[in-house]
Parts: sequence; structure tokens; C-alpha cells
Amino acid sequence: MRLMEDRAELVVQPMGLRGDVAKGSTLLGSLRSLGVPITSPCAGRGTCGKCLVKVIGGKEDLSTPSSAERVLISDTMLEKDYRLACLARLKGDVTVLIPPESMLGRPQMVTDGLSVTVPLNPAVTEWVVELEPPTVHDLRSDLKRLFDAISRDLAVRGLCADLEEARSLPSKLRRHGWKVKVVLWQARKILEVGSPRAQGGVYGLAVDIGTTKLATYLVNLRNGEALVATSIINPQIEWGEDVISRITYSKDARRTRRLRRAVVEGINHLAEECCLRAGVRRTQIYEVTVVGNTAMHHFFLGLEPRTLGLAPYAPVVQDPIDEEARRLGLRLNRAANVHVLPVVAGFVGGDAVADILATRLHEQAGWQLLFDIGTNTEVVLGRKGALYAASCASGPAFEGARIKHGMRAASGAIEHVKVEPETMDVSYHVIDDEKPRGVCGSGVIDAVAQLVQAGAISPSGRMVGPGVVERGQGMAEFVIAPGEETASGAAITLTQQDVREIQLAKAAVLTGCVIVMREAQVAIEEIERVYMAGAFGSYVRPESAIAIMMIPKFPIRMIQAVGNTAGAGARIALTSVEARKEAEMIARATRYVELHTFPEFQELYVKALSFGETRIAQGLGG
Amino acid sequence: MRLMEDRAELVVQPMGLRGDVAKGSTLLGSLRSLGVPITSPCAGRGTCGKCLVKVIGGKEDLSTPSSAERVLISDTMLEKDYRLACLARLKGDVTVLIPPESMLGRPQMVTDGLSVTVPLNPAVTEWVVELEPPTVHDLRSDLKRLFDAISRDLAVRGLCADLEEARSLPSKLRRHGWKVKVVLWQARKILEVGSPRAQGGVYGLAVDIGTTKLATYLVNLRNGEALVATSIINPQIEWGEDVISRITYSKDARRTRRLRRAVVEGINHLAEECCLRAGVRRTQIYEVTVVGNTAMHHFFLGLEPRTLGLAPYAPVVQDPIDEEARRLGLRLNRAANVHVLPVVAGFVGGDAVADILATRLHEQAGWQLLFDIGTNTEVVLGRKGALYAASCASGPAFEGARIKHGMRAASGAIEHVKVEPETMDVSYHVIDDEKPRGVCGSGVIDAVAQLVQAGAISPSGRMVGPGVVERGQGMAEFVIAPGEETASGAAITLTQQDVREIQLAKAAVLTGCVIVMREAQVAIEEIERVYMAGAFGSYVRPESAIAIMMIPKFPIRMIQAVGNTAGAGARIALTSVEARKEAEMIARATRYVELHTFPEFQELYVKALSFGETRIAQGLGG
Repeated sequence: MRLMEDRAELVVQPMGLRGDVAKGSTLLGSLRSLGVPITSPCAGRGTCGKCLVKVIGGKEDLSTPSSAERVLISDTMLEKDYRLACLARLKGDVTVLIPPESMLGRPQMVTDGLSVTVPLNPAVTEWVVELEPPTVHDLRSDLKRLFDAISRDLAVRGLCADLEEARSLPSKLRRHGWKVKVVLWQARKILEVGSPRAQGGVYGLAVDIGTTKLATYLVNLRNGEALVATSIINPQIEWGEDVISRITYSKDARRTRRLRRAVVEGINHLAEECCLRAGVRRTQIYEVTVVGNTAMHHFFLGLEPRTLGLAPYAPVVQDPIDEEARRLGLRLNRAANVHVLPVVAGFVGGDAVADILATRLHEQAGWQLLFDIGTNTEVVLGRKGALYAASCASGPAFEGARIKHGMRAASGAIEHVKVEPETMDVSYHVIDDEKPRGVCGSGVIDAVAQLVQAGAISPSGRMVGPGVVERGQGMAEFVIAPGEETASGAAITLTQQDVREIQLAKAAVLTGCVIVMREAQVAIEEIERVYMAGAFGSYVRPESAIAIMMIPKFPIRMIQAVGNTAGAGARIALTSVEARKEAEMIARATRYVELHTFPEFQELYVKALSFGETRIAQGLGG
Repeated sequence: MRLMEDRAELVVQPMGLRGDVAKGSTLLGSLRSLGVPITSPCAGRGTCGKCLVKVIGGKEDLSTPSSAERVLISDTMLEKDYRLACLARLKGDVTVLIPPESMLGRPQMVTDGLSVTVPLNPAVTEWVVELEPPTVHDLRSDLKRLFDAISRDLAVRGLCADLEEARSLPSKLRRHGWKVKVVLWQARKILEVGSPRAQGGVYGLAVDIGTTKLATYLVNLRNGEALVATSIINPQIEWGEDVISRITYSKDARRTRRLRRAVVEGINHLAEECCLRAGVRRTQIYEVTVVGNTAMHHFFLGLEPRTLGLAPYAPVVQDPIDEEARRLGLRLNRAANVHVLPVVAGFVGGDAVADILATRLHEQAGWQLLFDIGTNTEVVLGRKGALYAASCASGPAFEGARIKHGMRAASGAIEHVKVEPETMDVSYHVIDDEKPRGVCGSGVIDAVAQLVQAGAISPSGRMVGPGVVERGQGMAEFVIAPGEETASGAAITLTQQDVREIQLAKAAVLTGCVIVMREAQVAIEEIERVYMAGAFGSYVRPESAIAIMMIPKFPIRMIQAVGNTAGAGARIALTSVEARKEAEMIARATRYVELHTFPEFQELYVKALSFGETRIAQGLGG
């Protein structure tokens, strides 16, 4: 039988947790027994000095600091009543405050293809605070009272509050008996005040605005878990498939506004769908991160995009932006914030920054190369201390557009094609094993690659060889799936025109890659890893990409598909404020390579159109 | 004939001014000759060290710093190329930047009754900046480019911009050839970017929200001149004449919103009228300051007012607030800011803070007392280092309400009354010398005072004496103007009920005054000056106020009418950012005296109702 004298009460702030713990045990052990997620990198061995807590009540009821503790903690900190949880032992009732830096941020996985773990430290956090009620001798305002309580518990200063939230503060504070849960942004702005017992939850939305695809991810900010991913075609497609058409369209404020509203409504729609699928209310989304290429960035913010279409292509705004969601037209929590990642230059945007953030290109000792393939393809080459990026106008062919039987990578799409060079017999794989309805980007690349290797497509791109049906006047085509095998009953073919589209697209990517490598003075042999990002990048077979000379001839083992790294970067920034600072640093450090003003651009591009230029395939540029 | 060699070109930033000046002359003389308003308290004698300028071009073309100059300016400043304009002489072409602190703020008069001069230093300023256009080697964003140019010229950091203004930045910068005028808030936020040659102007609106009267002042922020003053009855009067009725009414969010909208629309209306009369556009108003008692403050911001009606009467927000005008519903420049002055406590608001700011109570060596008389009357007692304030629920009687023939102090109002004690003959003065239509507050006080002195009103307030017409059942009345003299043909009288209303009102003021003096432990003899503020305070005869024992028996020569000091304080805060800091300091330093919880409140109030209690009239409280 245990005597009550052996037990002590431990109160833990800012959670307002109370627990009955054993006297004599360490604070760390007691906190763990109460389920407090406190950090302890050295596992409680008293060597790392990281499990700092601040004693705010009953400090005489803790063991006096040992010499071991004094080595790890400065006198100034000791004077401020900081102690190491693993070394301080309980002698009686104690109240401690866990400072944010001692909270255990649960690492989380953020990409499919890569294993990136990010310590959880979102901009939006919840805290339970207890206020002193007003008396005739203490007539501080309700807001001041709340600020003082938060400042005391979190050791922060310079707090502010959303005015609308302040409006109903008196009722809320009194209804909940002067103990409330506050939702804080960046430990300085009060977004919401509510019941300390409210279950709810705090969610964030990561948004990746692609030229063609708009994708959102709903993330639980309490644990970093990505709950739902949704995407639609970017509604701006109504005003042009590529960036230049949309910039040309938006020649006045009214049209710029129209483009802005289209993408904002798209995001609202996706946010709603995310919420519906996850059983979350829109008002539980307090934070949004947005990445996109510079044009998408400008359209989303409503910035005049005209300078992006005019040399020297200076952006209007480049640094990261924090703006209220409601002001941008997003219907989420009324106090929600939108963090828009910085852009590098007129054509390399926050998507490239997010790519780097997700692949950690900026931390590697050796050179790594990334292709984020889409309607705009970003080419990023980097290692620690050096980052180069370019944007290639590859057009929508890789996404199945402008291809006769093209379609997106969805059910019924032929995603892989194999042609026997002897017999020209075709085999293919269809997504979800349905009857084929069309061919997606990776299937088209496969088909072109196989025909180039079989000699049915000449180095200049003419369909000439065996198996090609000549329909006269450049109307040659190659049957991938005959009518009897397809869903519609009509044959699915690859046409001469399709080959031309692929040539234009792959030449843009290859030229960009070669120029970036030249700018960085990096030879193909020096590159240690190649990432293929984006939906297309994940599906395309590296062998085919090399065979059509879309990318230089890297050893296959070096090439890795990494999924949507732009979206992953947006999720990283959503769950970590440090990552936002890192993104800003990346944006400043990345050297923008302007392709169109590069002296040999035209010459290289013409060479890159070929399926047979071996020098350029070595990254040498002919 | 002057040789060209004798002349030099002087370029002055941030105005972008260029001038041809004589070599050998001092910078100060040259700047003055170009009309630059540079400060020089010692009149150029080289003794004060205030005319600092920063040399940003051609520093070798200035005389080397003399020993006199080195005495006044630190080495660090010299290294940063600061010079004293009165001591540095021109040897050739030079470009200088005039830092804000060296600009001559033209002192301005801000009250009618008092002469207060405030150096002009508004939150909103205009600057002409010249940017470097982008090149392929300089791809900074347009916004960064603008920030850099402003930071360079004004030596400020951490700039931000209104997003909507950033949206159209590319067009504006290019249209104006990379030289633009920016409107800056607090030297850190860009409110507007426009043509460097735009005439326009920058205006501000000072708002005084009284329980009964809503007043606005349009001020030219370039020179501090108050152009127009307008006022209307506070539209909230629909929901109650006094503060308590409105607090009681606004029991839910919908009703609080209704009261908020009423006052906001009132201000919009007055702003429009100000603009119309001054020939200014609404969009030229970039800054608003707001003062009001705590209830008006809460209603304007939409803060739940319920705690103002519940002991211990804690306000919801107390510190000064800066909020976007459009978010508060004001239709001015879209980037305009509203600065709401701080409040002291639940019943003493920003109006009292403004009263102090305008009368400088907080700077005086001796005790001074201020009455800001209205539906709520503020009593402030202060000297350097000690400020006490209380709010008295005096009701609307002083403003002519609840008085049978009462009216506001407008054309046709009897403002002064004289009764011959021997004959009871009445003489009076009517505003604008029209036929009388009613009697305003000061007239009522005069009439009561004269009747008290003639013995026609007893110490307890009964109308008994000569000249009083008894109409039975407490319906006694005294004819001020017989029917044949009035505009309507009906007599204007003072009734027994009117006397009761005045008793309640004056007792509230006197009780407040006595309690404040007790709290401060200040005797009547120690008070060196008494200010009567507010419209009523300016009209009422001090002799009458003393005769009815509304205020203690001060020597008449000490009493000074000072007009609307709340409005004056709002204008001071509008034209000086230092005054805002001062206001914050005043709000924190002022000790709130809560009347209703004062132990002897009831007892004192009952005594104060009398017209004959001499001890309380000595400020002794009976």
C-alpha cells in the first residue's frame, strides 16, 4: 500500500494538465507518465540539455540543481527558474511550463517517393490558458488579461488579436470560467478563443497551383498527418492552356481579377471537398500554404502579370507573403492566414522552391538534378551552397493534351507501351486494367521511344519505318491499340502530329537542362542523382525519357521518381515554420537561369528537337 | 556678371528637388533658398546640432567638418555621412537627404480656448522616390525595388505594402518612368503609389464620438490645418439617450452590430460632408483618429459592451488600436488606417485621454481640474506624475434634453438669463439675436442659479418664491420669456421638473468631483486652474455653475472655458505620432476613480442634490 505522502501533484502548463505522480521521480519521467510530449534527444541521460522546463510554482519542491545540471544549463536560465526535466526530481507539488522549444515535434513523412521527415512545428497552435478574473483592484481589459496570461505561459511578447475575435471576448471568457483554449498564429496573433474542452481540431490546407492541375492537401496540424488530397483541372484553363496565353489574356485589372477569382474558387471548391471527405469543418482550417510558378503566384494574388511576359521578366512580388485568407477570397476560418511561398524570378516560382524544400537539394554535398515536369517544367540543379533553376515552356503535351488520343493519367489510360522491334507487335498496360480509352503522357513517351529505337521514327522525327500506316500528307500514324481492343471501338494511335508535339516539348526540357548545366559548369558525370517530379515524372519510364532524348543520358539507377514535390513542399511549409524560413533562404539563394536570353538558346533548341543528337544527349549541347 | 563656376547644383531628397545655388554658401542657406523646410532651432548659429542632413552624393564637394561641427556631431554620425547644414559649405554639386527628424514640423494651433501648439508629424507622409529599372542582371521584383529605394532614401527598414496597391505596381512604376510618389504610413507601410507630379493632397479625419454628438474635423496632413468641422447628433440616440440604455439594448451580437453600423454610417456621412465643403475627395483621407468614452469606443469597434454595465466594469480592449478603415466600414482611401485612442477604464475613455492631451494636465507642476461636460461628464484631476479621472452619469439635461422648453445651443436658443432679485424682471440673450424658440443648457443653469439666488428656489430644489407660478401638484413654473416675445407665441418657462432634472445632473458632476479630489487627497485650495470643456462647458457661465453647486466654489478667475478638448485631442493625435505615444502613456498613468463603489457615494450624492450644502461646495463632501 502506497502512502499519500509518497505522491505529489504535478501541474503542467500551458495545457492545464494535472496529475498525481510519485515523489522522488524525475520531472521527465513524471511528464511522460502524464503523456506530455516533451523532447529528450539523449533519452533522459542528462547529456543533451534539451528537456528544459520552466518552474512556475513550487520550485522549492524540486531537488536543488546538481553539478551535472549546472554544466548543461546557464546561470541566467537557472535564475529564470528553468530546469532540466531529466535531472530535476520532485519533492512535492510543482507547476511547470513546457516552453514550445521543448515540445516534441512528431516527425512526419511528407512525400510518397522520398522519405523526408520534418519536425512538426506549425504556425498555428492551440493553448489552454487560465486568466485571473477582474476585480475592483484589477481593471485590466479582457484582451489585456488574455494577452498577459498567454505571455506568462508561453514567454512571448507583442501579442495581437483579430478584431472580430476580440468583439465577443467578454462572453467567451465568462462562459468558460476564465479558462479558454486559444488558437495562436506564430505565437503572436490570437485567431480564436473557445472552450477549453472543445474537441474540434486545427487543420491546414496545402495548395499547389499548377498551370494545368490545382491540388490541395488537408493536413491535421496537431500531428502533421495529411488526411485527404484532392485535385481538379486549374479552372484558368478556360483562358489558355499555357502560362503565356493567360498572361496575354489578362491585359487589364478586370481580366486579372477574373483569373484570380477562377483559381480562388477552385481552391474553395477543393477545400470543401477535402473537408467533406475528412469530416472537418471549413472553419477548422486556420492556415494555408500556397506554391505555384510565378505566373500562378501572381494570378492567385491578383498581381498584374504583364511584366512576366516582358523582358527582363521581373516579378511584381518575390518575397513570401502572409495575408488573411478572407481578404484573398478563401472561405475558411475567418481569421485564417495564407502563407504564399516566395518565388525565385519571373518564371521560376514557389513550386521550384517547394521542390527543393522537399528533395533537400540545398543540403547535399554532390550535385543533384530535378525535373518537375508539367505544362511548365522546372529544371533545378543544386548542391549545398549552389542552386540553379530554369523554367521550360514544355507545353501541355506531357499531360496528354494536344495528342490525338491523349488523355490524363486516369482509369483507362494506356500508361506503358512496348513494341517488339522484330515484329512491331505492341503490348501495353492500362491504368486499372480497363479497356483502353486513350493514352496518357507516359504511354506516348513510351510509344515514341519504342518507335525511335525500332527505327520507325527517324532522328528528325518523321514516321517512316515498319508498322507505320501512311495516310498521306504527313498523316502517318502507328496503331497502339486496334479498335477491337478499345473501349470506344476506334483504334488508339500515335500520329505524326503527336510526335511533333512531343519533339517540341522534350526539346524544351532538354535545352533547359543543358543550359542550366552550362551555367553551373557542371558536367553530366558530376551529377549524382536525378529526380523526376510531378505526376508525369512519376509515371514516365526513365529509359523512355532517355531514349527520346528528353533528358540527358544518365545511368538509370540514378533516376528516381519522387511524386508531387511541389505539393510536398507546400505541406512541409504548412507543418513547419522553420521550413518557411528555409524556403525564403532557398528563394534568395537560387540563381535564376534565363533561357531565352541565353546566346545559344535557338541553336541548342533546334538540336534538341532531334532524336539522334548524341552530343546534346551527353549534356554537352552539341 | 556671375560666372557659372560660382554655382553648384544641390539635389535634395526625398523630395527630388534640384536647385542652382551659390558655391561657398552653407547647406542650410542653400536649402532655405530652395524652400526646403529644414529645422534649425538655433537659427543657423551652429550651436544646437539639430539641422542634420545625410550626404548621399558628392561628399567631397562639401567643406571638411570643422572642429565646431565635430563637437556637435558624433564620429559615428560623421562616418555615416551626416553633416550639420548650418556648418557645411558647398564647394561643388552635392546630393543630400533630409531625414524626417530634421524636417520642420510647422507648429499648429489645435484648440479654440487654449493655445496648444503641436509640431507636425503625422503618421501619413508623402515621398517621391526614384527606382532603378530592372535589367537582366537585376531581377528584383517591382515591390522589392520600391522597398529598396524607400529604405535607401528614408533610412527605414521592414517595409510592407497594401496588397491591393501592390497589384497594379508594374503599370504605375512604368507609366511614371520609375519615379513615383508614395504615401507611407508610419514610415513602414505603403498605402499608395502614384504620379510624382500628382497634386492631390493628404488629409486626415479626427472623430469625436460623444454620447449625444458626433463630431468630425478634416485636417490637411501636409500642414496640420483643420479645414472643416462638422457634427450631427449621434445616430445611436435611437437606442437610448444615455450610455446605460444603449448598453442594455445591445444584449446580443446583432444589436451590437446595429449600434456599430449606426455610428460608422454617421461618420461616413460627416466625412462626406467635410470633403464636399473642403473640395477634397474621400479617397484623399488616409488616416482617422477616434476618441470617445469607453462605451462609444466599444460600440464603434463592435466590442461587446455588456461588461461595461457590470461591476467591476472592465473594458474589453483598452490599448490603442490601429485597424484598416475599410474593415471598420469607413469609406475613405482603401488603405486608410484608423487609430483609436486608448481608454482608461470601463467608464473613462479616449475622450478623457484626449482632454488631457489637449490641456497638458499631465505636464503641469500644480493641480488642475477639468470637467468635460456632456451626457457623460468626465472629471479629470491632474498634475505632472498624477492623473485621476472619473465619469459621471450626468444625463442629457445639460444638452437641453428632458427640459420642457430645452433645446440645443443653436439659433433661437436662450443662452443666458438674468433675473433682477428685487423685481424678478427677466432679461435674456438669444443666440443669433432671433426670437427665442427655447432655452439651451447654459440658459437653464443661469435661470436656476438666478432663482436660487433670489430665493425662488429653495435649497432642496422646490420652486416656492416670488415670480413662480403655481399650477398645482408640483407643476410650478417660472416664465423666462412670455408668449408675446417668443417665436411660437407660447411662453418659454422653467418648470419644477426641469429643476429636478438639473439637480440630478449637477449632483452627479459635483459628487464625481468631490470623490476624485478625495481619492487624490487634494483640497480645493490646491487647485490652480479649472477647465470647462465640451460645448456646454464653453457656454455655461462659471458663476451660475458655482451658484447651483454643480462645481465647487472655485475663484472665478481660475475657471477657463476650453471648447471641445476631446476633439482637439483627436486632432493632435491625427497630426502627431508622438502624441499617440503620449496618449498611451496618459491612459496607463491615469488612475480610474470608480464612483459607484466609493463607500460614501450615496451619502455624498444626496447632499450634492442640494442647492444649499456649503460644505460640499467647498469640495469637502459634507
